[in-house]
Amino acid sequence: MFKALNEIVAPEDRFNFLINFVSDELVKKTDELRFYNALYLHADGVRAISKAMEKYHVQFDQQFLAEEKLLKDLGVANPELEATFLRSTLQGISLEYLLSPKDYPLQQMKEMLVARYKIKKDLK
Amino acid sequence: MFKALNEIVAPEDRFNFLINFVSDELVKKTDELRFYNALYLHADGVRAISKAMEKYHVQFDQQFLAEEKLLKDLGVANPELEATFLRSTLQGISLEYLLSPKDYPLQQMKEMLVARYKIKKDLK
Repeated sequence: MFKALNEIVAPEDRFNFLINFVSDELVKKTDELRFYNALYLHADGVRAISKAMEKYHVQFDQQFLAEEKLLKDLGVANPELEATFLRSTLQGISLEYLLSPKDYPLQQMKEMLVARYKIKKDLK
Repeated sequence: MFKALNEIVAPEDRFNFLINFVSDELVKKTDELRFYNALYLHADGVRAISKAMEKYHVQFDQQFLAEEKLLKDLGVANPELEATFLRSTLQGISLEYLLSPKDYPLQQMKEMLVARYKIKKDLK
């Protein structure tokens, strides 16, 4: 995933890859992700996996930097803040999807995210 | 909260009220919300609070309809899908804030949400 985010040259393709990757993971690993999300928010869970978290923090930082670069390449005005906004939105979409996988309009949410950055690019 | 969402006439003021309400709650009730978020995602927790959830589902539906109406009043093209997007984004912002309240740029995220709908309105 991180490899692809560094290797795909065209930012539009990289963005679509990111959105599709998150979406595919949600559909394929629903129960697993639900478990990790719950653990992540639970104080005991956080303590129990704090060692593992240190490793993930490095991965997370690299991932965040790759997303920030992607948004910069897409011509977004504030790539750092926009990366936080994108990450938050993806987390929220994931959370809502995990709560009701059958009813959630995942495909339409993906399209709205793509539209957000396509519009920004066209406006430049 | 729900009362205000029905009573404030100007949609821009209603939108700002919604965003400020969520943000204020996050800051004031961080630990409580972290607990409920974890419970919400945990299968045992969901079963344990399923009775209570029935009551909240009605509230949630009313809240969602009020948000959908707000977006319609703001002149958004697809109020129902946009309400899902807004709800997901607010959930994601909440989740990310709860994970690191000190570092998260909550104020800037609020401004980006406001900008999203102000821009849409201007484009109409």
